[in-house]
Amino acid sequence: MAPTLEGCDDVLWPDPPRGPLDAYRARASFSRRELQLFWEGEDMLRFKKTVFSALEKDPLFSSSRGPELPLEKYRELSFLRCKRVLEYGFFSLDSLLQNPLQLLALINCLGAYDWSVSTKFALHLMVFGSTLYSLGSERHLKYVEKVLNMEIFGCFALTELSHGSNTQAIRTTAHYDPATEEFVIHSPDFEAAKFWVGNMGKTATHGVVFAQLYTPDGQCHGLHSFVVQIRDPETLLPMPGVMVGDMGRKLGQNGLDNGFAMFHKVRIPRQDLLNRAGDVTPQGTYVTTVKDAKQRTGVSLGSLTSGRIFITGMCVVNLQQALCITIRFSATRRQFGPTEEEEIPVLEYQMQQWRLLPYLAAAYALDHFSKSLLLDLEGLYQGLLSGDHGVWQAELSREIHALGAAAKPLVSWTAQQGIQECREACGGHGYLAVNRLGDLRNDNDPNCTYEGDNNVLLGQTSSYLLSFLERQVQDGARFQSPLRTVDFLEAYPGMVGQRFKGTSVADWLDPTAPLAAYEWLVCYLLQRSHQKVMQEKRSGHSSFEAKNNSQVYHMRTLALAFVELTAAQRFHTRTHGPDTPPALRAVLGRLSTLYALWSLSRHLALLYQGGYLSGEQAGEALEGAILDLCAQLKDDAVALVDVIAPPDFVLNSPIGRADGELYKNLWSAVLQGSGVLERPTWWQEFCVHRPVGAGLKSKL
Amino acid sequence: MAPTLEGCDDVLWPDPPRGPLDAYRARASFSRRELQLFWEGEDMLRFKKTVFSALEKDPLFSSSRGPELPLEKYRELSFLRCKRVLEYGFFSLDSLLQNPLQLLALINCLGAYDWSVSTKFALHLMVFGSTLYSLGSERHLKYVEKVLNMEIFGCFALTELSHGSNTQAIRTTAHYDPATEEFVIHSPDFEAAKFWVGNMGKTATHGVVFAQLYTPDGQCHGLHSFVVQIRDPETLLPMPGVMVGDMGRKLGQNGLDNGFAMFHKVRIPRQDLLNRAGDVTPQGTYVTTVKDAKQRTGVSLGSLTSGRIFITGMCVVNLQQALCITIRFSATRRQFGPTEEEEIPVLEYQMQQWRLLPYLAAAYALDHFSKSLLLDLEGLYQGLLSGDHGVWQAELSREIHALGAAAKPLVSWTAQQGIQECREACGGHGYLAVNRLGDLRNDNDPNCTYEGDNNVLLGQTSSYLLSFLERQVQDGARFQSPLRTVDFLEAYPGMVGQRFKGTSVADWLDPTAPLAAYEWLVCYLLQRSHQKVMQEKRSGHSSFEAKNNSQVYHMRTLALAFVELTAAQRFHTRTHGPDTPPALRAVLGRLSTLYALWSLSRHLALLYQGGYLSGEQAGEALEGAILDLCAQLKDDAVALVDVIAPPDFVLNSPIGRADGELYKNLWSAVLQGSGVLERPTWWQEFCVHRPVGAGLKSKL
Repeated sequence: MAPTLEGCDDVLWPDPPRGPLDAYRARASFSRRELQLFWEGEDMLRFKKTVFSALEKDPLFSSSRGPELPLEKYRELSFLRCKRVLEYGFFSLDSLLQNPLQLLALINCLGAYDWSVSTKFALHLMVFGSTLYSLGSERHLKYVEKVLNMEIFGCFALTELSHGSNTQAIRTTAHYDPATEEFVIHSPDFEAAKFWVGNMGKTATHGVVFAQLYTPDGQCHGLHSFVVQIRDPETLLPMPGVMVGDMGRKLGQNGLDNGFAMFHKVRIPRQDLLNRAGDVTPQGTYVTTVKDAKQRTGVSLGSLTSGRIFITGMCVVNLQQALCITIRFSATRRQFGPTEEEEIPVLEYQMQQWRLLPYLAAAYALDHFSKSLLLDLEGLYQGLLSGDHGVWQAELSREIHALGAAAKPLVSWTAQQGIQECREACGGHGYLAVNRLGDLRNDNDPNCTYEGDNNVLLGQTSSYLLSFLERQVQDGARFQSPLRTVDFLEAYPGMVGQRFKGTSVADWLDPTAPLAAYEWLVCYLLQRSHQKVMQEKRSGHSSFEAKNNSQVYHMRTLALAFVELTAAQRFHTRTHGPDTPPALRAVLGRLSTLYALWSLSRHLALLYQGGYLSGEQAGEALEGAILDLCAQLKDDAVALVDVIAPPDFVLNSPIGRADGELYKNLWSAVLQGSGVLERPTWWQEFCVHRPVGAGLKSKL
Repeated sequence: MAPTLEGCDDVLWPDPPRGPLDAYRARASFSRRELQLFWEGEDMLRFKKTVFSALEKDPLFSSSRGPELPLEKYRELSFLRCKRVLEYGFFSLDSLLQNPLQLLALINCLGAYDWSVSTKFALHLMVFGSTLYSLGSERHLKYVEKVLNMEIFGCFALTELSHGSNTQAIRTTAHYDPATEEFVIHSPDFEAAKFWVGNMGKTATHGVVFAQLYTPDGQCHGLHSFVVQIRDPETLLPMPGVMVGDMGRKLGQNGLDNGFAMFHKVRIPRQDLLNRAGDVTPQGTYVTTVKDAKQRTGVSLGSLTSGRIFITGMCVVNLQQALCITIRFSATRRQFGPTEEEEIPVLEYQMQQWRLLPYLAAAYALDHFSKSLLLDLEGLYQGLLSGDHGVWQAELSREIHALGAAAKPLVSWTAQQGIQECREACGGHGYLAVNRLGDLRNDNDPNCTYEGDNNVLLGQTSSYLLSFLERQVQDGARFQSPLRTVDFLEAYPGMVGQRFKGTSVADWLDPTAPLAAYEWLVCYLLQRSHQKVMQEKRSGHSSFEAKNNSQVYHMRTLALAFVELTAAQRFHTRTHGPDTPPALRAVLGRLSTLYALWSLSRHLALLYQGGYLSGEQAGEALEGAILDLCAQLKDDAVALVDVIAPPDFVLNSPIGRADGELYKNLWSAVLQGSGVLERPTWWQEFCVHRPVGAGLKSKL
């Protein structure tokens, strides 16, 4: 039933419908097709179109998207859609291993349609399925097959009611019983109930459950993962000893059934321990190749890094869609003008440009960043699969972990703030549910806290950076990492003394200027953070306290500046490389410089504080450069969102449709609402049942 | 049926239930009762308790709050609750005129419960009702009486589908027909449909409708307001010629029926023109006491200023509630700790303090600011009622307009960002709907765009400030305003040359230090904005363009800094005044300084750029002072939210209950969900209807 795309250019690059957006489209400095081809590649474009076309033709996907439905109905629709996606079989496993970006593209196409469907699909197939594969061994392949044909349905159960960030403190236990060669999975009390587990609420039959492993000698070997059957696949009723339920309504993603579970001495076969990091012999002896308990947990939780990188992709999709809606709206909504007769599109206002275009630049920059991280991750896995366990491989793993831990905060917050700005930039119309900015914001929101709270994660990245400095002090080690993201820090002591030499807007428009400023900034923050931690320790604080007291204004900012630089640097490389088509260099160069300058401008105080900038001129020139770039990009903005826009069917926003017929579309959509023109069913509550002794009147 | 409060101290100041929050409560530096008394006054406390107790005892208010209900049901509940509130008659009209804060308190008590009820009530009674009064004349009093006993139900219809901010461009027309002595209200096309009108969707029978007034000679006299009957109060069916309907689901406040209406040559009596600004004689001659058309519109739209000030109060309530939930959560949620055995409350982390406590300071500062603005407004109205139309009165009106236009952006954005921070600071649990942070955020959101888009409004405040400078240049006029908010600007040319003389944290902890810095900042921004506008004009731009191109980084920042200073200054005066009880001075002083420093810190770059600060030390010391104050306030934080917290019934958040039993409450609430432990009704979709030809497997 695999769908195909009748391949011709008109399908891949349909002309946008004529209408009020024509004027902006005509003024674009580049060809939409050329940029799409450069940005995505023809294969990827074709793949996305195939997925979108299949969804658009399928009546199961054409009914309501869900958020306004009763919870139970939305859950059902999401499950049915998830099943249908599996039936479509959009790609083979082989092609998947060769092209991880395709998997990302599928997840993101589904997510552009509705994250409830996408997340449900991804949790089952990728998070549950691939964890079996990455944390288990051959004896678990039987489950993988059942995942692929949906004989079982999976979830990933780590978090508990009272523990999330501190995974070490997870309290579910798994005691080994050699008499029956079973593990006994147990929740000591309701605070140890598994909680927030996606798919667990109504649908999962099996879970990868994390628990503290105890051998018969009473010793605890730390957190391990087990395959635990939760429900009977024949009936979807819970297994004996399992109390499993649904957490109810969330702020978004309500098609996904997040759930909880308590285990009352639930017995599972010894083989259902996922034994990549450690195993228990039939007699009850713990065996492991990874000696250090912390490192073992590291192996178990390694899959979270890939989760975080996938999340950055989800955030980018949300931000892109919000911008498509808002920039098309801004190009057609007219308000005020130079004369009373003539109103101009709100996109012509400097204020609206400044509110939106930096986020448009970010949407491109972070899209590239997200994809590049996925390719890094792919390299790491290839190494692991080929049996490479050397130092370089370990360093690569640390580096990717540190990048992912800061990339998720950067991208999820940028999306969160960008979508909110979009919602406000559409004025009241942005507050109408049918225009979809609310769903985008609500569905994006959990990205800021799950798979690691953003602020906690930033602490991991800054610790990674500081560890280089500590090692340098201890044994003269160099700042060097496999992906070279930290190499520039080798120059940090000298770098901190550098000063910006420019004075004018033009100096900041040099694309290398913000990157150089960022390098200075990261060096400065590294030094400052290190000094702060040392100072805290000298005043008698423990290492725990010293780090906690050095987060705000120091380590947190360090991690953010580092990852912003990395994203800006990679986008710069992508847009200024030899294979960038000449006709695209101008617009891509502007996006790249705008992203870097705008991000940098949030650190303007530090640039002054640390002495990199001085005088009124330098900061004003930076701001001037941002506004100049916005003005230069405003005529390209509609074409730039056309490049990244999904079809109208997926975007699903009357004010954001490609035809630009803002008011006609909005008016039609409002009139399509249920019972719009009818009087309320409870009209007698006004007309017949009059208020009793209305208080205010009696006292007139 | 007016409820009473059996008045004794135990009712007014019940002790919070014992539990996990005891430790923090015991460490508070002040008495909760003393602060409540100082902050609200006993009468106000008693009034609020009366309202809350009435709601809590009334079964109509104890069922679901609404957001998860079907739209129709939620609308019905909100209407019934609105009617019930009117029946309660919580105050007399007389007491209302003497004590406007009581009306604000009622609106805010209802809003703390559910903004849909509160807004519905306020739109009918205050916006519709008081507009009849303020824009009409004696001939409209007949309507006021019907409003009070709910014989009619009202709405305020200004915005149209294609026009919001630019009210001048409203396109609905009202042609006068002397033959019948009627106005003909007409919507030329659907883009001129009234849109976004609260109460119009399902319930309003009458509206104050804004339209362009035409006399028979064909002349347009600009925007005027008319009482137009929309529905028949006997049937709630639309009147002939009126197409009226419901806009459907919004991001929040879904108990309120926002609607649209098109008028097809609807005839209304001549007398239904609200004739405060202008009138039409039976023969069709336009007569007015206000010669200037723009000024006439100003009179018509004057009520928007009071709307904006009420909105600031709404935002404060939302922010306060989010903080109550989150600070109680943070004081009971433990995660990580100095040793593996001991976990500490997340409120102990500097990061969590820094994320939340400045917003707590803001919640107090802006609460006071909002109330003070209402009293200013009250003073203005008293003057108008006593017939004062002098220059001072006109200046007062301008000043209050300018303050309201910047206060709404400041307070609504602070609440928006604060609630989002709270939602994230509660981690995953903040994303669960039952904990209510989502509703607070969603219901608060429209405050950023209605009654004037925030960014557009800021332009009005900065224009007000610049007008002083222009008048000074032209005719040497002084910076002087009735409320004295601009008087310090008289010193601006010299002030710009001032420099911060401190170097240490202690220097910034001096409560006058941030205020002095702010005064410098506003002077600097005034000068910079003026120079920018001049420069734009010199380079050939029209006045329209020059102002547009001077908003970002200039006028917008000027308006924000000005209103932040005003809020900080008023909070400082309130907390450092002679009647501040000595036992409260420490904690209130810290809140005041923290709010001022934290707000100021967002302008740190400008302080350096303009030369007020120099050297690394100054900025670091400012940051250090903020962190010091956070640390000093963390043991007071729980008691500070106890002071402003509504009863648990109203707060309605398991993780935010006063007993601090975070997990027990959350667990109970989740288990109370409908069908939580049941298998889905559609279980056969998994168990029986298997996926067809699952694509991935076939390619293994």
